[in-house]
Amino acid sequence: MTDSLPAATPRLYAAAPRSYAAAPPLVAEAMEQARRRWATRTKPPGSLGRLEGLAIHLAGVTGRCPPAVPRRPQIVVFAADHGVVADGASAWPTEVTRAMIASMTQQGAAINAFAGVIGATVTVVDVGVAGPRGTVAGVRDERVRAGSGNIARTDAMSQQEAWAALEVGARLASEAVADGADALIGGEMGIGNTTSAAALIASVTGASDTAVTGNGAGVPEAGLEHKRGLVAAALRRTRAVDQPLQRLAALGGLEIAALAGFYVAAAAHRVPFMVDGVIACAALCVADTLSPGTAAHGIAGHRSSEPGATLALAHLGLEPLLDLELRLGEGTGATLGFPLVKAAAAALEGMADLPTGSP
Amino acid sequence: MTDSLPAATPRLYAAAPRSYAAAPPLVAEAMEQARRRWATRTKPPGSLGRLEGLAIHLAGVTGRCPPAVPRRPQIVVFAADHGVVADGASAWPTEVTRAMIASMTQQGAAINAFAGVIGATVTVVDVGVAGPRGTVAGVRDERVRAGSGNIARTDAMSQQEAWAALEVGARLASEAVADGADALIGGEMGIGNTTSAAALIASVTGASDTAVTGNGAGVPEAGLEHKRGLVAAALRRTRAVDQPLQRLAALGGLEIAALAGFYVAAAAHRVPFMVDGVIACAALCVADTLSPGTAAHGIAGHRSSEPGATLALAHLGLEPLLDLELRLGEGTGATLGFPLVKAAAAALEGMADLPTGSP
Repeated sequence: MTDSLPAATPRLYAAAPRSYAAAPPLVAEAMEQARRRWATRTKPPGSLGRLEGLAIHLAGVTGRCPPAVPRRPQIVVFAADHGVVADGASAWPTEVTRAMIASMTQQGAAINAFAGVIGATVTVVDVGVAGPRGTVAGVRDERVRAGSGNIARTDAMSQQEAWAALEVGARLASEAVADGADALIGGEMGIGNTTSAAALIASVTGASDTAVTGNGAGVPEAGLEHKRGLVAAALRRTRAVDQPLQRLAALGGLEIAALAGFYVAAAAHRVPFMVDGVIACAALCVADTLSPGTAAHGIAGHRSSEPGATLALAHLGLEPLLDLELRLGEGTGATLGFPLVKAAAAALEGMADLPTGSP
Repeated sequence: MTDSLPAATPRLYAAAPRSYAAAPPLVAEAMEQARRRWATRTKPPGSLGRLEGLAIHLAGVTGRCPPAVPRRPQIVVFAADHGVVADGASAWPTEVTRAMIASMTQQGAAINAFAGVIGATVTVVDVGVAGPRGTVAGVRDERVRAGSGNIARTDAMSQQEAWAALEVGARLASEAVADGADALIGGEMGIGNTTSAAALIASVTGASDTAVTGNGAGVPEAGLEHKRGLVAAALRRTRAVDQPLQRLAALGGLEIAALAGFYVAAAAHRVPFMVDGVIACAALCVADTLSPGTAAHGIAGHRSSEPGATLALAHLGLEPLLDLELRLGEGTGATLGFPLVKAAAAALEGMADLPTGSP
């Protein structure tokens, strides 16, 4: 079945309202074909190290061997604000979210520079920024609500809003695939979102507030203890929560919900997606509870220096490609990992058979 | 002095015959400008992790701030054979060197696939392959001799030959720079060359034969002990050697000499160069003894799984960008690291100033 698509049509939704179907399984036959193809490439067995496993994984995700070399990556950055900033969750004020997405539309952010390196464009989506709506030129307005509730005191959003934000992400992924994207990179921007991510990761994995909370975009040392307290309060408040959509609504945020939907749809379409830092890891934890098996489709671009990222990656069973002490978000670490994915696929596709004289 | 070139003209040779001048120092003023420029980019301080140091290093190498984004990388693969293969140094016969460079000219090797990802071309140079000369179409004939001597029993080459091979590498680097290359990636192909690399690394760093010797392209477990014995014999034979050119001639090989000359010239031209795996690390150890300060110009693409690579990188003071368990050579790990260099420079150049509201 080389080069054929998997038999089953991707199915995004389950029969129940506001629920996703399980992710399609990785295609074992394509993965086995990829293993056999590596074994006859012109190099010592195993000498391409983790790139070999990466190309095998791509075969499983796409159902093709050799998997197509991804040439049209699409980056989507979801932006939202966080009520918990009012309680001192971040060193930066909420207004910086708006300033940063404006900078992204003017090609001034790190993600723009990195997108240029991989030949991708960046779509910026307002799914929950605070303040007046539709006022940043070049930002796509998909706002579900103007910022989330303060998770230390109240739910981030209603379950209806959480579903709506998930669906923004799923729709953006489906549109990108329809437009020809063959790899999807999700990013985020939202002052305060490492607090929400820490709470979600702790809630999903069972890790403690102390273990998951880090300095984020740079809270001062005294602020770290305060931030841990906010995460602890959010976890105490939501102790009884055990339904995936309820957890997402309780701990937010809107951009995390959108990223989760983006991943669920990417997996359903069998299009490889790259995972970024701690916010993205939290979103994938959520996605995997909403659509079991989604995480198995993900490619972790890098290991963020935020402690919650390492906990989440271990929970998700993902080994990141890069470890460069990044903690910026925006999709930067995922984008930096993309050339390795392209290289792995290009080698499996393009390398010749072993020469004569092999041992 | 933003955007100005360093005052001193690069100087490749010393006054003494067959010797290189010291490498030019990194330009401290450009590095300080780069540090200050990072501090005002639109992101939390330090949040781009190691990419920030990478761009600062580029400023020091090139003497410019912001350093130009490298857009014309050039890959040169030096090939040579090794007499020590006659004593069972490798699981692969000498003939595979010729087969592999033929594959490279036909775009069939891993390095070709990876070169495509970064938009580079691959020049393959015969600096010391065994067998009939000039018979592989598309390979540049710069042969100094047909394979090296068996280092377990005799010198790899004469000092005249070592100098000639160094000069092949230096000339290829200078030509690439004259042709507009703004980043240089050296690769190698040579059955048996991990034995030569292990011996050179042990000789330069003082590490033991046991510590430096690894499985290379795949010697079986029983063969590893035998390979260690060959390295030990080479080290015993050359115990009294303490002159850099003498060491290179004694332990070879010809492609390692060419790579060393390539690095010396790249540093003299102030063009950034990427270092690959254990063979390249051995060559940079040699280069740094011939032209002190050369190693400070290098960018380590990856950490090879060969133990000698880690010893050499520590000796050279280089921290690799990637750690993907590669052990293929050809320049593959250096090439895979290149997009990170490009991204670091692109971010420092392209990112906007901090928005208002910074903490």
